[in-house]
Amino acid sequence: MTDGLWITFEGGDGSGKTTQAALLEDWLRDQGRAVVRTREPGGTEVGVLIREIVLHHRGDIAPRAEALLYAADRAHHVATLVRPALERGDVVIQDRYLDSSVAYQGAGRVLDAGEIRDLSLWAAAGALPDVTVLLDLDPAAARARLDAADKPFDRLEAEKAEFHERVRAAFLQLAAAEPARFLVLDATRSPEELASTIRDRVATALA
Amino acid sequence: MTDGLWITFEGGDGSGKTTQAALLEDWLRDQGRAVVRTREPGGTEVGVLIREIVLHHRGDIAPRAEALLYAADRAHHVATLVRPALERGDVVIQDRYLDSSVAYQGAGRVLDAGEIRDLSLWAAAGALPDVTVLLDLDPAAARARLDAADKPFDRLEAEKAEFHERVRAAFLQLAAAEPARFLVLDATRSPEELASTIRDRVATALA
Repeated sequence: MTDGLWITFEGGDGSGKTTQAALLEDWLRDQGRAVVRTREPGGTEVGVLIREIVLHHRGDIAPRAEALLYAADRAHHVATLVRPALERGDVVIQDRYLDSSVAYQGAGRVLDAGEIRDLSLWAAAGALPDVTVLLDLDPAAARARLDAADKPFDRLEAEKAEFHERVRAAFLQLAAAEPARFLVLDATRSPEELASTIRDRVATALA
Repeated sequence: MTDGLWITFEGGDGSGKTTQAALLEDWLRDQGRAVVRTREPGGTEVGVLIREIVLHHRGDIAPRAEALLYAADRAHHVATLVRPALERGDVVIQDRYLDSSVAYQGAGRVLDAGEIRDLSLWAAAGALPDVTVLLDLDPAAARARLDAADKPFDRLEAEKAEFHERVRAAFLQLAAAEPARFLVLDATRSPEELASTIRDRVATALA
């Protein structure tokens, strides 16, 4: 949409998104690029309040309400943080975007994936990333990583294993539908190998 | 959508919605009806958290984010409170619904009114009230009433007078488009006169 470059990281919890985003940020800064690291939900002050409701509210949230809260976070985040950064020419590295909504809400819950995508695109006024890195990992392997790290579960993490299988399949389906935007990587590869492949793709996009 | 009856009150702040909703509730209870009094935003526990963000967050909220937050509140409210009450056969008396979103967001802000309506209808899975009472009042008169009551302004109330003129026009336009659902009343009439007219309409709807 502008002079900058917008990179999103997608995949289940425990797939290594944070590690790879940090390695990419370091490399870009070494190249002299201005970088904005951000995430959804919760990339803005308003988003933090929304994230708190979605992830930590006790008691069920109606499925359409949950989808709309993620979309609200997205609308505010894109309008007030991502778009201005790209217009300045910065590189935006973002943890999760609309592919997560489609995968988690659409495939994982009771809502139609196409409607969730339309909702997200309306929220973001049609904005899509230049590059989306999908770190693909078997949910059982991801679970083992999270257990090893002894991280507390949040509401989504606590959902059943079968749910995570459906999410993984949905991510892979999204990537297959947009091969030009997606870089799909086997998350069991070493962090260094993954970082190198991601750097190559980003270097090409910047060139 | 069910055996109950769903009545919404619409109009600017200071138009007497709360007074009329209370009078209608008393009358319905005297008739032996089970009544649920509620409102949007903030008619549920999740809604209270959302309402807090929309009405009292310091700093701007992106227009699409604001619309999506109202829609999220609506989705949760209709799914978890309104629909179950109507299915029990109760009468639901509600302060504000999607007409407020269309009037305030669509006409008052920068978004398309049709898109806001579609968003609300998606949130509510298409649910519309049986009767919508529009208490129509000149914004200057409403302002005088609120000043007399010495109520503190919230963020929406503090907007300019011109904004409230556009909201009023939008409400009247919505009522003209759906005459079967709307009962439009001159809010300068006495509370007793207004209550009597509303009772007649509701009695007909219940018969």
